[in-house]
Amino acid sequence: MTYTRDELRWNGWGLRAQGFDLGGHDEKVWELLARTVGLAALPDTPAKDLSRCTLPASKLDDVTLGKLTALAPVATDDLERAAHALGRSYPDLIRLRRGDLSSAPDAVVFPRSHDEALALVSFCAAEGLAAVPFGGGSSVVGGVEGKAGPGQRAVVTIDTTQMARLIELDPVSRTATFEAGVWGPDLEEQLQRRGFTLGHFPQSFEFSTLGGWIAARGAGQNSNRYGAANEWLVAARLATPSGEWRTLPFPQSAAGPNLNELIVGSEGVLGVITEATVKIHPVPEARDYRAYLFKSFEAGAAAIRRLVQAEVPVAMLRLSDGDESYFFGALQGLRHPPGKAMEVAEKGLAALGYGPGRCVLMVGLEGEHGHVRSSLAATTLACTREGGLPVGAGPGKAWLKNRYAMPYLRDPMLDRGIGVDTLETSTTWANLPRLYEAVRQGIASKLGIGAVLTHISHSYEDGASLYFTFFFARDLGDELGQWRAIKKAASDAIAENGGTISHHHGVGQDHVAWLPKEKGPLALEMIAAAKKQLDPKGVLNPGKLLP
Amino acid sequence: MTYTRDELRWNGWGLRAQGFDLGGHDEKVWELLARTVGLAALPDTPAKDLSRCTLPASKLDDVTLGKLTALAPVATDDLERAAHALGRSYPDLIRLRRGDLSSAPDAVVFPRSHDEALALVSFCAAEGLAAVPFGGGSSVVGGVEGKAGPGQRAVVTIDTTQMARLIELDPVSRTATFEAGVWGPDLEEQLQRRGFTLGHFPQSFEFSTLGGWIAARGAGQNSNRYGAANEWLVAARLATPSGEWRTLPFPQSAAGPNLNELIVGSEGVLGVITEATVKIHPVPEARDYRAYLFKSFEAGAAAIRRLVQAEVPVAMLRLSDGDESYFFGALQGLRHPPGKAMEVAEKGLAALGYGPGRCVLMVGLEGEHGHVRSSLAATTLACTREGGLPVGAGPGKAWLKNRYAMPYLRDPMLDRGIGVDTLETSTTWANLPRLYEAVRQGIASKLGIGAVLTHISHSYEDGASLYFTFFFARDLGDELGQWRAIKKAASDAIAENGGTISHHHGVGQDHVAWLPKEKGPLALEMIAAAKKQLDPKGVLNPGKLLP
Repeated sequence: MTYTRDELRWNGWGLRAQGFDLGGHDEKVWELLARTVGLAALPDTPAKDLSRCTLPASKLDDVTLGKLTALAPVATDDLERAAHALGRSYPDLIRLRRGDLSSAPDAVVFPRSHDEALALVSFCAAEGLAAVPFGGGSSVVGGVEGKAGPGQRAVVTIDTTQMARLIELDPVSRTATFEAGVWGPDLEEQLQRRGFTLGHFPQSFEFSTLGGWIAARGAGQNSNRYGAANEWLVAARLATPSGEWRTLPFPQSAAGPNLNELIVGSEGVLGVITEATVKIHPVPEARDYRAYLFKSFEAGAAAIRRLVQAEVPVAMLRLSDGDESYFFGALQGLRHPPGKAMEVAEKGLAALGYGPGRCVLMVGLEGEHGHVRSSLAATTLACTREGGLPVGAGPGKAWLKNRYAMPYLRDPMLDRGIGVDTLETSTTWANLPRLYEAVRQGIASKLGIGAVLTHISHSYEDGASLYFTFFFARDLGDELGQWRAIKKAASDAIAENGGTISHHHGVGQDHVAWLPKEKGPLALEMIAAAKKQLDPKGVLNPGKLLP
Repeated sequence: MTYTRDELRWNGWGLRAQGFDLGGHDEKVWELLARTVGLAALPDTPAKDLSRCTLPASKLDDVTLGKLTALAPVATDDLERAAHALGRSYPDLIRLRRGDLSSAPDAVVFPRSHDEALALVSFCAAEGLAAVPFGGGSSVVGGVEGKAGPGQRAVVTIDTTQMARLIELDPVSRTATFEAGVWGPDLEEQLQRRGFTLGHFPQSFEFSTLGGWIAARGAGQNSNRYGAANEWLVAARLATPSGEWRTLPFPQSAAGPNLNELIVGSEGVLGVITEATVKIHPVPEARDYRAYLFKSFEAGAAAIRRLVQAEVPVAMLRLSDGDESYFFGALQGLRHPPGKAMEVAEKGLAALGYGPGRCVLMVGLEGEHGHVRSSLAATTLACTREGGLPVGAGPGKAWLKNRYAMPYLRDPMLDRGIGVDTLETSTTWANLPRLYEAVRQGIASKLGIGAVLTHISHSYEDGASLYFTFFFARDLGDELGQWRAIKKAASDAIAENGGTISHHHGVGQDHVAWLPKEKGPLALEMIAAAKKQLDPKGVLNPGKLLP
């Protein structure tokens, strides 16, 4: 295991020893944020300390705990239970920070092998206990809450992070088989030491696991090059109450449905993913991240479409709209105040029409030197054809350096009465403008004074994702009610305007209500019927994914 | 509809008016083939004429037929029933040629819309009739046989080819929505007239349909560029006994499992695919097909692996092993005898080590002029690094011209006592040599004197397909028993040596016995459970896909 429990925040992001670097300009940053959410002064809303929280007593008796302990290591202490109570969504954090630990599991178990995981899910089924698979616990959709289903007397959370070995690396076929509880950095370290990379770098990379990426159907920041979980998963092994379920590593097969596609996005309801074979790539020879400015979101989106439809090989295309570009520019400017030269440059940009309202496109290129060179030429050509202005590698370097930092800003915001959440969707290129406007309006309609920032971070020949980040002053009297109203407005706007309810965060509990509209009732019955074969008693992750 | 029933062979390949061009050198070709299968003289084994065949009487009474006719056009004449009795596999053709029409459906219906298809499957469910979806009928795995399930009193085949409209073309998102019964050439004609292509060109292209490609999880000859059905399908609409089932056109979604992947490869057991939205591409500016010679299959395979792992954009990489290269070279030489210059060139090639035993790699490049130029340079470099010798565009032109011709050679072979069948699999690069040897040996062990020709025609970063074609002298006393023995030996070798039981032909009936080994019993129960939701009475395509 990469982390010890003590190193990690149980009610916030990442390492206790780490925070968001405000460059010593804290006061100015908080002024900006207060202004953004319409507050004259930010209130003090600290999180409750664990020592002051009361956890519900474990509902597992000593006999049952004894049997569990015979199967795998078990923890029932407050810290482990609190750390596994919820995920890292906004409403999860609100609950944790209040000390609401009502969903703390009754025990946390740590299987060290597929066989132990198998024994554990069988035991839970036999004993009528809920079994909640848990990797890094970074779900932002309520996907790992310790929750019992109807008639289940207790909740056992199955923490997979003791299963982290590299089982096999096949350099000829360029695949690697890992135990699925491996943390992101550990997986990459094991691969890169051998000259390879998976290339899956979601924002949660440092605190999420291979199995979690698969279960949530995740996509990393470099998905243009390395693909989302459904693209890089070759085979998987699951522990289910009905026994082992595995798929085999074929590059392609026409032997009926591709069941990897049921495993990817299964969110712990079909089984505990214990092992996975994934596609790997040589560590890229070259890497070039740089920025282009556009006068409008439409122009930037047109450049992305041009690039992906011309099949220019890129690793990342990330376009912020005017509001997001402005906000992050202002934040960066406060943290690292620009020098005289930059001020002059800004004036020049404004004169050229790339002033306030401009949109930043971050382009990442990775691969062989020659590939990167030719992709860069093609990228600059496509961008300039849409009125884009190349502004060099500086912003790219800064972005790479900070790629995992943003979640650390959330905790201090939550300490100061500010609410912040994100959500995402995807649609066809033709429908993108409509969906963009509808979701922004949906969120804004319930936000009060605040900000809605949007970017495109995943793009395809036929469409792209839209990612929304929004800030608001919390209604301290009804924080969860306020959030639910915003979430409903956003999700309704997505469902009514041709978007998917999730591009890469998953369904969890928060999106369940919108799934019937997306999949249709017949499809949900099919998935439920498939689940019933693997998990006839419904012990696996109750309340997640399926209505 | 592109074809009239009278134009098509009911018991053989394609158009009655078309055959395989032997260049006027028939005698020499048949000498070669006789020698290959170890016969001094080829016997005369003509197919029975339809007028001499007796079809079983339709088991549908007039009342039921009347009700069917109220829902959609119905045919019960001998020619339509015979043409829908079986697919185009070797055992299917053996049965048809004998006049065994025991599996002729009791009626063939031709829905003209999704709603008519929906009414038909509901009717079949209500009346206890088997409903067999049928596109072009080119299945080579027993996928369209008119077969009733337990307790079903008759079989209705649902021919989709009256549903062939282009519903919508979205040039911005580069997708097109068609009714799924559209024939390949009709689909391409409608797209190409508007500047686009789907790029799906299986060998059956001329006589198969969009819905069939999806149902069979097909891959076309240019799959490196345009992808297999699972890659180009964006959304689909199905008529099922439980009602309409449709998926929505998202470029990517994390809202649970991707159900398109259940539709692709569903082989008619989940519903009739009535509409599909697919990814389209601009008609390529440039096209370059050319050949390289290799001294061994291993060297050629290494070149393919090098190209796909370096992500060189190609449309097709097709490597014949020594036996296949020799056979097709000999056949071509007989049809179009080489001139003096070619004979000299051959001597030169032999002196360089590219004589008999050499392997031909056909490379197809498509796209923008610049892309094709740079891919050609990269291809030649990769090939020469593995000892490949560029031999120009001549063989590429010949291959393109003949790409759909080979199936026409099968009928005259069957007329002369020769058996011919094909099968295919895929595996990882590391396992490819083992699987290649095992399957060749498996087939050869039951073939008697004959030929086993092999090629790689689909390749991936992690592995490739293997396609086997084999000829043999038919055991005229027990043709089907002889075939079953060969098929079993080959399929056992595949299942025992890490191959999938089908890379792109599908499961149908012929591969059902090997599916449990590949998917595992739990997985098959899950698929069966999902089917039960859509088709509780099991009326759809009984006996196909699932054991």
